[in-house]
Amino acid sequence: MNKIEVCFTLENFETFRNTNAAVIVVDVLRATSSICAAFVNGVNKIIPVADFSEALKYRANGYLVASEKDGIKRPEADFGNSPHNFSKENICGKDLVYCTTNGTRAIHAAAGCNGIAIGSFPNLTAVTNWAISKNCDVIIMCSGWKGRFNLEDTLFAGAICEQLLNNANYSTICDSAIASVDLWNLAKGNLSEYIKKVAQYTRLNKNGNGDCIEYCISTDTTDVVPVFNGEYLTL
Amino acid sequence: MNKIEVCFTLENFETFRNTNAAVIVVDVLRATSSICAAFVNGVNKIIPVADFSEALKYRANGYLVASEKDGIKRPEADFGNSPHNFSKENICGKDLVYCTTNGTRAIHAAAGCNGIAIGSFPNLTAVTNWAISKNCDVIIMCSGWKGRFNLEDTLFAGAICEQLLNNANYSTICDSAIASVDLWNLAKGNLSEYIKKVAQYTRLNKNGNGDCIEYCISTDTTDVVPVFNGEYLTL
Repeated sequence: MNKIEVCFTLENFETFRNTNAAVIVVDVLRATSSICAAFVNGVNKIIPVADFSEALKYRANGYLVASEKDGIKRPEADFGNSPHNFSKENICGKDLVYCTTNGTRAIHAAAGCNGIAIGSFPNLTAVTNWAISKNCDVIIMCSGWKGRFNLEDTLFAGAICEQLLNNANYSTICDSAIASVDLWNLAKGNLSEYIKKVAQYTRLNKNGNGDCIEYCISTDTTDVVPVFNGEYLTL
Repeated sequence: MNKIEVCFTLENFETFRNTNAAVIVVDVLRATSSICAAFVNGVNKIIPVADFSEALKYRANGYLVASEKDGIKRPEADFGNSPHNFSKENICGKDLVYCTTNGTRAIHAAAGCNGIAIGSFPNLTAVTNWAISKNCDVIIMCSGWKGRFNLEDTLFAGAICEQLLNNANYSTICDSAIASVDLWNLAKGNLSEYIKKVAQYTRLNKNGNGDCIEYCISTDTTDVVPVFNGEYLTL
């Protein structure tokens, strides 16, 4: 029996670390949703970096860079962090460096586990099937927000848990997985209404970035499953 | 307007630290429930220590010591950590050293805030009124379990939030507070059934300690509000 665990913040990941587990990294608003959007639109590879000075070094070598500070595109970057930035025209066939506060740190924190994939509502079933294909324990690593729990990642974790728990090979005794499922069951009937309660919904709208939220909570619009090979994200 | 925040693990408390806030420390199964039981039965004061070797130093000086390791009373201690250990006969008028994995560390982690009180279902309304009497921000600090989220502390946090949010002086934009309220609303209609889902329910029963759970989820059976004065817990 494979076990499912949900880690609510990347800072807590050490208490979950399990080198036998497949890790699904989640940052619904917006890093992992944006990364999926970029692969849908044909990006070649994405290098996740947590430090903007590192991103600038890549840029000096010809890479496109996506980065914001406090929700505003940095002037030195090519794009902000919204999925809407990653149109075919902008990124098809290109390499991209993606720099954010939480999501990219989460990807690096999971290094050394049995596979790391990017999860978001747009690729919910696809990323769940990726985990099932590995037939091992699963850790859903929510990025959180500056060290704190966030609701939107938790809802998505609950959606994955729901699918995994429908498979006889998976079970959980993890309180955060159980809470995620219960919260997801509360929200899923009207996710576009429930999402208005979360702090990041307010933050994004305050910065004029709320236009991406509908995309970020749209379920199963793509089959792409970006995976991290230790250096970059690829299909 | 006073804000309410919920911290799911003591290890995350630094991201919430606010010296203007009153902190309610929660370890439903079982430290804070047991501490309340001891004050109900007339304990004089309780010294919370996280390290058993420190507890033994107190014991050499005549203090009673309550401590378990992995759910079993330590042979060198006078009592385990169950509320049932703290009968009037055992502790009335005496000083007690209480040593546990999570709860006592949480109390010390909150040092320096604007008041620290012990919360549990038995003193739910009393500890909420203590917070309201301070008329300041409130942080509900769940102890968690070895660095992880736990459901029972979260449900209790939701119960406090519900009461505070019925008071016009309190509001929240904290995702963990919102999740706590939603989970509490799911559970409160049949808490004795819902609690069977939590990992600690299984752990306690496995160790033969499940007999205290009914007490630990009984709401408003006492008005005691133990507060931490920096050295010990007192009324």
